[in-house]
Amino acid sequence: MDRFAQTPEPPYFAVIFSNQHSDQLAEYEQVARRMLELATTMDGFLGVESTRDASGFGITVSYWRDEEAIAAWKSHAEHAVARLRGRTEWYKNFHLRVAKVERAYSLANAETGARKLL
Amino acid sequence: MDRFAQTPEPPYFAVIFSNQHSDQLAEYEQVARRMLELATTMDGFLGVESTRDASGFGITVSYWRDEEAIAAWKSHAEHAVARLRGRTEWYKNFHLRVAKVERAYSLANAETGARKLL
Repeated sequence: MDRFAQTPEPPYFAVIFSNQHSDQLAEYEQVARRMLELATTMDGFLGVESTRDASGFGITVSYWRDEEAIAAWKSHAEHAVARLRGRTEWYKNFHLRVAKVERAYSLANAETGARKLL
Repeated sequence: MDRFAQTPEPPYFAVIFSNQHSDQLAEYEQVARRMLELATTMDGFLGVESTRDASGFGITVSYWRDEEAIAAWKSHAEHAVARLRGRTEWYKNFHLRVAKVERAYSLANAETGARKLL
């Protein structure tokens, strides 16, 4: 499975969600899967990248067409219930940042840099 | 250790680096530590958040005061050498996105949402 989001040319938006799991993770996995499934049905959802280490520190970045798409997702009723459980049960702490992606590249189109270094 | 970056009020910039490790990781850890050490000495560096799962999929988000600070870090000679090794040895693939953070909050100042849900 490719874990990279195949996003369009910028500009678009990123929601950067860094978080530390608590020890109360009942139903977390199934709700997280359901949220991902729901998010992909939202108009303006562009993709997501997510990872977490063994200590429970995770970063999830979701990508959205515009602020309106982010607002619609935030106000989705089922997502609102899940967020409340996140705040009260599953996360010891989190930071959430909304950012406008201005430029992007991948390994395939990175400057090689070789010439610079000679 | 607090894994969260203590960033100032937006606006500021985020460099979102999602990556998949290759199987050639010689010297990766020591160079990564050195890059972190170097980055923290750069003018305009605001913090970093990073995590990686057991499959080698990682996300590192570094935070910067402005585009000039990002450009200065990108052109740092030792960092340029490390980036070349990243492209040719340590990473099977990566995506790098530069984004302007417009708003941010943490668990401590998240809306509780409780009222909304009643």
